[in-house]
Order: sequence, then C-alpha cells, then structure tokens
Amino acid sequence: MRIVALAGGIGGARFLRGLLHTAPESDITVVGNTGDDISLFGLRICPDLDTVMYTLGGGINEDQGWGRADETFTLREELAAYDIGPAWFTLGDRDFATHIVRTQMLDAGYPLSAVTEALCDRWRPGVRLLPMTDDRVETHVVIEDADGRRAVHFQEWWVRLHAGVPAQSIASVGAEDAKPAPGVLEAIEAADVVILPPSNPVVSVGTILAVPGIRAAVAAKTVVGVSPIIGGAPVRGMADACLTAIGVDTSAAAVAAHYGPDLLDGWLVDTADAETDVDGIAVRSRPLLMTDVEATGQIARAALDLAGELSS
Amino acid sequence: MRIVALAGGIGGARFLRGLLHTAPESDITVVGNTGDDISLFGLRICPDLDTVMYTLGGGINEDQGWGRADETFTLREELAAYDIGPAWFTLGDRDFATHIVRTQMLDAGYPLSAVTEALCDRWRPGVRLLPMTDDRVETHVVIEDADGRRAVHFQEWWVRLHAGVPAQSIASVGAEDAKPAPGVLEAIEAADVVILPPSNPVVSVGTILAVPGIRAAVAAKTVVGVSPIIGGAPVRGMADACLTAIGVDTSAAAVAAHYGPDLLDGWLVDTADAETDVDGIAVRSRPLLMTDVEATGQIARAALDLAGELSS
Repeated sequence: MRIVALAGGIGGARFLRGLLHTAPESDITVVGNTGDDISLFGLRICPDLDTVMYTLGGGINEDQGWGRADETFTLREELAAYDIGPAWFTLGDRDFATHIVRTQMLDAGYPLSAVTEALCDRWRPGVRLLPMTDDRVETHVVIEDADGRRAVHFQEWWVRLHAGVPAQSIASVGAEDAKPAPGVLEAIEAADVVILPPSNPVVSVGTILAVPGIRAAVAAKTVVGVSPIIGGAPVRGMADACLTAIGVDTSAAAVAAHYGPDLLDGWLVDTADAETDVDGIAVRSRPLLMTDVEATGQIARAALDLAGELSS
Repeated sequence: MRIVALAGGIGGARFLRGLLHTAPESDITVVGNTGDDISLFGLRICPDLDTVMYTLGGGINEDQGWGRADETFTLREELAAYDIGPAWFTLGDRDFATHIVRTQMLDAGYPLSAVTEALCDRWRPGVRLLPMTDDRVETHVVIEDADGRRAVHFQEWWVRLHAGVPAQSIASVGAEDAKPAPGVLEAIEAADVVILPPSNPVVSVGTILAVPGIRAAVAAKTVVGVSPIIGGAPVRGMADACLTAIGVDTSAAAVAAHYGPDLLDGWLVDTADAETDVDGIAVRSRPLLMTDVEATGQIARAALDLAGELSS
C-alpha cells in the first residue's frame, strides 16, 4: 500500500512510528512541515523534519519528544559565554551537527529535499521524508504585548513565549509563492491513502496544505485524519492557541469542519468525542492516546481501515 | 612602552604570555597570522588567532598548546556519524562555538578584525589582537606523493600529513593583493619596538610580512627577534620542513639572515647557538626554552632589553 502522511513534529512523528509498526511493508512518504524552520547562529534548523527523522531513526529524546537522546550542551554553554543568543531555543551538541551539515549543503547549493535525503542516509527512518517545499516558508505570528504589536517568528511565539500571548493572526510567509518539493505531488498522486496524523491543524498540516498544489492533490485522494483534539483540548502542545487565532473552536468536530469535507473523507476521534458529527465526513471513534508504539499502531491501523472502507 | 608582536600559533602565544608577565603595563598589539585559516564544515576557522586568544584569555588546553581546556567532542562524533569530513582536523565542541560566532558575524558582513575584537570581548587577552589582514590569504603547499603533484592547504600538509611529505614550495595565496587590517600599520608606526616571537619564520611571521606594507613598516622600527631554532632544530613544530622548502638552513643564523639586516636589528639565540654571527644584526644568547611563564618572561625581558640597547 502506498501511503502519504502530512506531518508536523512530535505528534506526527509518534503517529508515524505507529504507522510503520502496523504497516511495515507499506511504501510511506512523509511530507514534512517546514514553516517552523528557523535560522539561528547562521545555521538552518528544521525542527519538524528533524523530529520525524530522529524519532523514526532511533535518535530522539523520548522523554521530551524532540532533540537527540544522550545529548550534551557544551556548545550552548559556550555561545552563552560569548553572549550570543537566543538562549530560549535549546540546541544540543548532537543536534548542532545536523544543522551544520544541512547548512553546509544548502550553502553549497543543494535544495532542502536533497539535504534531507542525505541526512536520512544516516538515519534510515523507514519512510521517504520530503520537505513540503524547497522554498523558504516561515510561519509568523502577530502578537501584542508590552513591547507593542508585532510579528514574531513562530518559534519565538511557541518556544520563547509558550504561546502565552494570544496570536492575533498567523501567516505562512512565502507559502503562496512556494512550489511543492520534487516528488511531493507525485507521491500524493500515486498514494492509495493520505493520512493527516494528529499534528497541529494550523501551523503543521495547515502550512503544508498552504503550499499551492498540495491541497488540491490531497483532496483528490482518500484522506483520513486523526484528531489532535481530545475532549476539547489538544493531546499535547498548544494547538488550541493556534485554532483560536484562526477562529476555529478547539474541538474534534470544529477541526474536521475546518479541514472540510472537500479535503477530508474520514475522521478518527477519541471515544470521548464519540458524538462528533460533521457533514460529509465519516467519523469513527476509538481511544486516541498514543501511549506506546503498540497503542499508536492500533490507531494507525484504524485510520488505514477507515480509508479502506471509504475507498472501496 | 608600545610593543607590536607578529605572532603565529603556539610558540607565539606562549611567548606573548611571558611578555605580558614581564611587561604588564605595556601597550601590546599582536598582529596575528591568518594564512593558516581554513573553512571546514562551512565555518571559518582561524587557528593562530584563536591560539593567541585562548592562551592569553585562560582558555587554552595547556598540554597540547591549541584548542580549549575541558573540551568535549560530541559534535565531531556526530559529524563522523554523518560521514562528513575531514576527520583529520580536530575540533572540540567549545572550539566550534568560536567558529560559529565568527562565521555568523563574517556572513553578516563584519570584517575579521571586528569579529576578532568581538571574540576578545569575552576572552580579554590583555593585548590588542589584530589579524594581519581582513582579506583572505591562504597558505598552500605544493607536494608530490603517490597521489601526484598538487597544491594542498597548509593545514592538510601540516595536520593531516604532519609535514611528512616534502614541500616543494609554499605560497601565501592572496597575500599580494591583501591589505593590512585596520590598525595594523598604525600600531607598527606607533611602536617603540617590534618583536618577532619564536613563531614559524616561514608560514607564520613570513606570511604576515608578505602582506604589502607590513614589512616596510616593521623594518622602519627597532626589531628584535627570538630564534625558533635551537641547536639546529625547531624548539617545537616542524619549522625545519618549511625552512627547507624555501632553501633556508635550519639554524638560528640562517633564519636571522633570512629575515635580513634590513628588517632585523637584534636576534636572541639560545646559549647552544652562542657562536651565531650575522652581518648587521646584534646577536645575544641566553636560554630560550619557554619552560614556564617565569622563564618565558625572562626571555621576553631579554628581548626588550636588547631592543632598548639598540634604540638608545
């Protein structure tokens, strides 16, 4: 079976591990969000791609869900001694190596998709990992606090401010002029099913869908999503702050309606949301907590089963 | 007293520590060699400037004479896991931070002299450290081995090949078009004495003197050198391999004659070389082993005394 998944960071990566567990023989292409990418210390950092790569490649810090296992922080300590910031974005020494290799290749002229492929030569994630685009797209958030009204990089809002200041709007700068990375549209067109993992519907899946051509290609396929909202709250992270910014309720039903029946065919919600009903979308409920690989595999299997049911 | 010293790496840095010890009230400007600089992993590395900065700033690895004390090597291990080389140039995590800060500033448009000043804000080396030039000068070495005749970067010859393959010639690529960094000529012109520490006379001091304008400015002053050769062998390093490449004997006398009486006024040699006699240059002998800061301070003091004697 040919599967395409549109993934953000932690939630997407954990779901993908379950998907690989339950469907190891499948041909899986992951289209990763790059709207969270940021340049720090002169290095290009792709948090979502790396989280997927490290998680599936066995290098993730399991407790925090991002960054490398067995990490050290000597470089960070030294940069602080040079008074070079920002200090709020934590980078470990092992993680730095990834960004150094990536930046060196980008500076040499390789597109991000080729760089990602080269990095995956080491990590062997078991999926084909593609950035949504080779073009630069950066999610910015308009906020207003004591420093005034201004747009900040998504990471500054998310990591430094912990999304504690309300987002007045969220924009994917550069998205409308971006082209899908080589292979993205082809993989979607060839897919038997497209899965939307329980990633952030606004700044992860939403950003991927904002790249011209991707939404239409996905909409033409059998698409099943897994709700990132359980009982009116995000399972993890601060997706509610993003949903509020774009005027969408933090509920499984509202997120499905936001994706819309033109895009989404099936929607997997938690048993807590069993009453969910969305026009034009087939809803199924089951436990959605990704407590371990086994449980996550069962969620992924349910998504594939629903896709099979809908496409038959 | 205003002192200018032209310094390479380890030998120069250790001498400078003795100079600061014996003449703490002096106004010392160090003109550092940048011909050994190299770009690796997309980062700009200035080994000689860093060795001076770390040594005088208290951050040097005392045993090896270069690199940082209390160093870790996580990043190096990760780069190797990515199969990204070269592995022969050892960079520690703490050291990497310096190169990341430097590269970020250079990419932002700051000249190397401004970057060096910014790095020294942290290290407070007690001297004014200037690169010889803000322009790119790289020392290349022509060698011939099983891989054929070719020019390699100085670091490849020095570090990877341990100067084990004879150098057929040594060239400072870019030197003839380079301009002295801001402040270099002014510092030399204002100096009471210019000191040539026991640095490599070819690839360290020689490279600095190859930047147009520097040699003439130095020659106009009272100049005292400290021989890097004791009893026909370099005190440290492989200066003999460099001297041989340019047709100069490995002896205290030959190095002084190579600098020449137009440049050099006084020459400090080891007691082992007390018989040294060079036309037009005042030679003094004393123990030259820089065994500790105290002994090194006495060598520096002898150089200053000789300069005083010659300029009176």
